[in-house]
Amino acid sequence: MKIALGQINTTVGDITANVEKMLDFANRAKTAKADLIVFPELAVAGYPPLDLLLKDSFIQANLEGVHRLKERLAIPAIVGFVDINPGKGKHLYNACAFIEDGAIKAVQHKTLLPTYDVFDEDRYFQPASQHTPILFKDVNIGLSICEDIWTRGDILEKLSYQIDPLQLLSEKKPQLLINISASPFAVGKEHIRQELVKEQTRRHKLPMIYVNSVGGNDQLIFDGRSFVMNERGELIAMGKAFEEDLIFVDVELAAHEESFKSANEAEAKIAPGKVRKETAVKLTGTIEEFSADRTVNTLAALVLGTRDYMRKCGFQKAVIGLSGGIDSAVTAAIAVKSVGKENVMGIAMPSPFSSQHSIDDARELAESLGIEFHIIPIEPAMKAYDTMLADLFQGRERDVTEENIQARIRGAILMAASNKMGHLVLATGNKSELAVGYCTLYGDMCGGLAVISDLPKMMVYDVARYINEEAGKAIIPVSTIDKPPSAELRPNQLDQDSLPPYVILDGILHAYVEQRRKPDEIIRLGYRPEVVQDVINRIDRNEYKRKQAAPGLKVSSRAFGMGWRMPIAQRFQEKASVPATGKP
Amino acid sequence: MKIALGQINTTVGDITANVEKMLDFANRAKTAKADLIVFPELAVAGYPPLDLLLKDSFIQANLEGVHRLKERLAIPAIVGFVDINPGKGKHLYNACAFIEDGAIKAVQHKTLLPTYDVFDEDRYFQPASQHTPILFKDVNIGLSICEDIWTRGDILEKLSYQIDPLQLLSEKKPQLLINISASPFAVGKEHIRQELVKEQTRRHKLPMIYVNSVGGNDQLIFDGRSFVMNERGELIAMGKAFEEDLIFVDVELAAHEESFKSANEAEAKIAPGKVRKETAVKLTGTIEEFSADRTVNTLAALVLGTRDYMRKCGFQKAVIGLSGGIDSAVTAAIAVKSVGKENVMGIAMPSPFSSQHSIDDARELAESLGIEFHIIPIEPAMKAYDTMLADLFQGRERDVTEENIQARIRGAILMAASNKMGHLVLATGNKSELAVGYCTLYGDMCGGLAVISDLPKMMVYDVARYINEEAGKAIIPVSTIDKPPSAELRPNQLDQDSLPPYVILDGILHAYVEQRRKPDEIIRLGYRPEVVQDVINRIDRNEYKRKQAAPGLKVSSRAFGMGWRMPIAQRFQEKASVPATGKP
Repeated sequence: MKIALGQINTTVGDITANVEKMLDFANRAKTAKADLIVFPELAVAGYPPLDLLLKDSFIQANLEGVHRLKERLAIPAIVGFVDINPGKGKHLYNACAFIEDGAIKAVQHKTLLPTYDVFDEDRYFQPASQHTPILFKDVNIGLSICEDIWTRGDILEKLSYQIDPLQLLSEKKPQLLINISASPFAVGKEHIRQELVKEQTRRHKLPMIYVNSVGGNDQLIFDGRSFVMNERGELIAMGKAFEEDLIFVDVELAAHEESFKSANEAEAKIAPGKVRKETAVKLTGTIEEFSADRTVNTLAALVLGTRDYMRKCGFQKAVIGLSGGIDSAVTAAIAVKSVGKENVMGIAMPSPFSSQHSIDDARELAESLGIEFHIIPIEPAMKAYDTMLADLFQGRERDVTEENIQARIRGAILMAASNKMGHLVLATGNKSELAVGYCTLYGDMCGGLAVISDLPKMMVYDVARYINEEAGKAIIPVSTIDKPPSAELRPNQLDQDSLPPYVILDGILHAYVEQRRKPDEIIRLGYRPEVVQDVINRIDRNEYKRKQAAPGLKVSSRAFGMGWRMPIAQRFQEKASVPATGKP
Repeated sequence: MKIALGQINTTVGDITANVEKMLDFANRAKTAKADLIVFPELAVAGYPPLDLLLKDSFIQANLEGVHRLKERLAIPAIVGFVDINPGKGKHLYNACAFIEDGAIKAVQHKTLLPTYDVFDEDRYFQPASQHTPILFKDVNIGLSICEDIWTRGDILEKLSYQIDPLQLLSEKKPQLLINISASPFAVGKEHIRQELVKEQTRRHKLPMIYVNSVGGNDQLIFDGRSFVMNERGELIAMGKAFEEDLIFVDVELAAHEESFKSANEAEAKIAPGKVRKETAVKLTGTIEEFSADRTVNTLAALVLGTRDYMRKCGFQKAVIGLSGGIDSAVTAAIAVKSVGKENVMGIAMPSPFSSQHSIDDARELAESLGIEFHIIPIEPAMKAYDTMLADLFQGRERDVTEENIQARIRGAILMAASNKMGHLVLATGNKSELAVGYCTLYGDMCGGLAVISDLPKMMVYDVARYINEEAGKAIIPVSTIDKPPSAELRPNQLDQDSLPPYVILDGILHAYVEQRRKPDEIIRLGYRPEVVQDVINRIDRNEYKRKQAAPGLKVSSRAFGMGWRMPIAQRFQEKASVPATGKP
C-alpha cells in the first residue's frame, strides 16, 4: 500500500480552511493512488491553539471539523484534533483520529504532554489512558503524537515522564509506527529529531513515519521535513523543509503465514477476526535534500515565519525603519523574501547624529532590494521635544533620555505609517541587544513582529553574508557589513562603547541563556569574570523591557518570549564565585 | 501551646531578606511565647519564582536559606521552600519544612500542582508521593500546601486531580491541619477561601490553620487574611488584609489517655515512642475585622500591588500623565496612597483638542492630592510630526493615525521624564479599553506598571467614588467623575461615539472574559446580538496590543496578562447563532 504524508501549513483557529486543505491534500493523495494520508498534530485546530482551548465553542468547531473530514475525505486518514471526554468535566485530549469509510475507527490520545519551554500542554490536556494499534489493510499501526516518541533515557529522566508510550505500543506488536507532530524549528533540531527516530526505530525494530507541521504561528516556526525511517533507522523518505509537501512511501507487506500461530489473545482482541502478520513491512520512498547549514536554515525559518505571521494576521505589506545598519538591512531582506519587494517599504529617519554614509547605506539597500524608500529626517520632532521638555529638564544634563527620544520618534513615525497605510511594522532588534537592554522600549522595539529578535548579533552578520552569497551580489551593502555597529544616537557613538565586543557578548549570552550555565562555568570557558557578571546582570535587570517586546520568531533552543518566563520585581542575582576586579 | 501565623511579604529571589524577615518574625513570636511559627508557601524563594526555578543556583540559594533558618530560628517553624531530589534528575518540589531544634525534622511536598490561569506549577514541580503528619508537642499535624486543600468535589472534577491530599492525610489521624498558601487576591476570593476551609474542616472534623502570603509580586497581589478555623468550621482567628501580620492561636490538648490503645501500628511508626492523643484540640484566637466590600478590597489590593511593584523593582517615585479624566485620576490617587504624595509627579499634556476643563480637572486633582504637577502642551511635537509626515501622507485624509500620534507624544514625554529622573511611569488604561483596543500601543499604554488595567470602566468609577467617600472630600474632582468620558484626540470626541455605553460593554466583557460565556449565552442575558458580536470581535482582534501591554495588577478572576494566553495570528471567531441585524 501507499501512505501519504500530508505536511501542511494550518492556521490556528481557521478550522474551515484547515479542513479544506486536508480534503484537498487527500484528493491529491488519492490521485497518486495513496491508500492512507497522515496529517500533523492538531491539524484541525492549528498548533498551538493556546487558550482558545478553553473555549467550548472552539472545541466544538474542531469536532465539527473532524465530522466534515469524516464525511468528505477521499481516502482514509490519520488526523490530529482535540478530543473531548464529556463525562469527565469536559476533559480535553491532544488526539489523532483514524478515519476510514466515513467513520472514526479509532482515536489515540497523546500520552506525554510537554510542559516546559514554549509548551503548556498540561494546562489543557489529559494524558492517554490506553495505547492500542489500529489495523489498516492487514497492517497493525501504532499511533503516537509528537512528544510521545521523545523517550530516550536522558530525556525521560530530565522530564520525569513515568510512561513510555512507544514501549506500551510495541508490546502490542505493531508492524509500523506513525507519529504526528508539531515540532518547532530550532537550529540543529532536524538532526536531533532524526537521531531520536533512528534510535526508536532500532530499539523497537519497527519502521516509523514521522509527519511534522510546517508554517509559522506567532513565535513558533514549524519546519516540516517529515520523514520515514525503516526498522534499521535508515532514511527512506524525506519531505521538504519550510514548505508544504505531500510525501509518499510504499509499504510492502512481506507476509509470512507461519506467523499466524504466534498471534496471541491480546492481539486477537485488538483486531478480531484478523491475523497480524509479524514480518517487518518494507518501505520505499524518495528523499528531499536540504541543507544542514544553520545559517541557511535560520534564514529559511525567518522568511517563513515572517510570511506566515503577516498572512495569518491579514497584512499585505510591511514597513521597516532602515538605519543603514546590519539589523534593519537583514530584516528588510527577509521581508522581501517573505512577501516580495512590492510589499515592503523602507523609511530612513536620520537625525543630526546620523552619518551620511548611513543614509547612503540605507538608500543603497533599498535600491538593491528594489523596495519603496522614504527619508524622513527627525530633527523637527527632536527640537519639539527639546522645547516641550525644557522647563521640566531645566538644569539637568543631556543623557540617554535624549537618545531614547530619537528612537521613540522613529518608532512613532513607523507606527504612523502603519496606522495610515495598514502596513505591519517589523521590529529590527537582535537577541544580543534585547538581552542586555541595548534598545529603547516604545522606540526601536516598536513593531508587530520582531523578525530577528532570536538572532545574536554575530548570527545577524552570518545571515547577511549568506544573503549576499546566495544572491551572488551585495544585496546588503558591503559597508553595512563592514562598518562598526552604531546606534548613532549621539556623535561618534559605537555599540562597543557601551557593550563588550559582540563576539564576547554573544558567547556569554549563548552560555547563560541557551545552555543555562552558571557564571562560574561561563568564566571557565575563558571569559573575564567582570564581563560575565556585567552581562548577566544586564540580562537579568532588563526583563521589564522584554516583557513589552513585540513577539519574536524563535529559532534557537531558548528564545526570549513565550518560553522565557522570568519575574520582573525580583532580586535574585547570579554571582560568580570568582571576584570581579576592576570595571567591566 | 501557642502557634504563630507569620503572614509575611516576601520578595521573589531576595532569599537573604526573606530569611531575615522570617528570623525576625520568629523572634517576635518567641517573645509572645509562641511554640511554633508557620510561614507561607515558598516563603524562602518568594512566590511566584517562575523560571528562576530553572536556575540551579537559585535552587541552591534557597536550600542555603533553609539551612540558615534551621541554624538561627528562635522557635520551631514550618517554612515553604523549594525542595530537590538530586537522585531523580534534580526533580523539584514545592515543599514545606518542619524545622525543630536546629534540624529539618520533616518535609511535606505539595501534591496538587495548579497549572491553569496564572499558575504553571507542572512546568517546575513534581507532586508529593507521601503524606505523613508531623508530631509536635504531642499533636499530630497534617501539613499541606495551597492547592492541596482545593479539593471540593466540583473543583476536583474541573481540574481532574486524581488525588485528595487531605483525605490521604486524614487517614493518618492528624489532630490539626496546617495549610501554607500563596493564594492571589481576586474580588470575592476571601469568601471562597473561607467557605472552602469551612467545608474541609467539617468534612475531616479537624481544625485548620491557613497561612497566606501578603504583598504584590508583578501582576499578582497576595491579600494575607490568614485564618484559623476549628473542626466545626468556625472562625477562631483572622489576620489583617493586605499587610503583614503575626497572628496567634492557642492550641489546647484535651487529652484522653484511653485513646492510647487505639494507636495503631502505622501511627506508631510515624511517631515512634510517642502516643497520639485522639481528642480534638481546642483553639482560641482573635479575629481581625476587614471589609468584604469589593471596591474597598480592590482599592487596597491596587495600593499594595503598586507599592510593592515599585519597592521590589527599586523605584521611589512615580510619574503619571493626567488627562483630567477618571482613569488617570484614580491611578494617581492610588499612587499617592501607595508611595506618598511627595513621590508622585503628575504631568498634564494638553493638545489643541483638550478642553480647558480637562486641564483644570487635572490641576485640581494634583492640588487635592498635593503632588508635583507640570503642564506640557504637546502641540510643538504634533506640528513636527505633521511636517515630517507631510510628504509620505500626501493626499491622505487625517484619521486615527493623527490621534495615535498625540497619544504617542504623551507616552514619549512620560518616558523621557522617567529616563531623566528615574521615576516609574504608571500606565492608566482600564480593562474595558484594553479589552476592545480603545488605547494606543506605545502611547497611553506606555508604562512600567498598569495599575488599573484589570478594572472595567464602571469599577474605576466605583473606586473613584469610594476614594472621595473615604476621604470625606472630593480628592478626585466631581467634574472628572461626572463628565462623559473622552480621549480628547479630536474635537468633541466622546468614548461613546466609538464604543457601546460602558455599562453594556463592561457587562459583555465580564460575561465573555471572566465567565467565559458563549455569545448566545451573553445575548440571552439581554444584550443586543450585534453589540455582543462587535464587542467580542474587538476583544479577539486586539490581542496584539495586549501582548505588548505593561504588566497589570490582577484583581479579577480572569485578567489579561500572565493568565491569558491567546495566539495572535489566529482566525477563530466566536459567532452568535442569532444573526446580527444592522450596525452595532
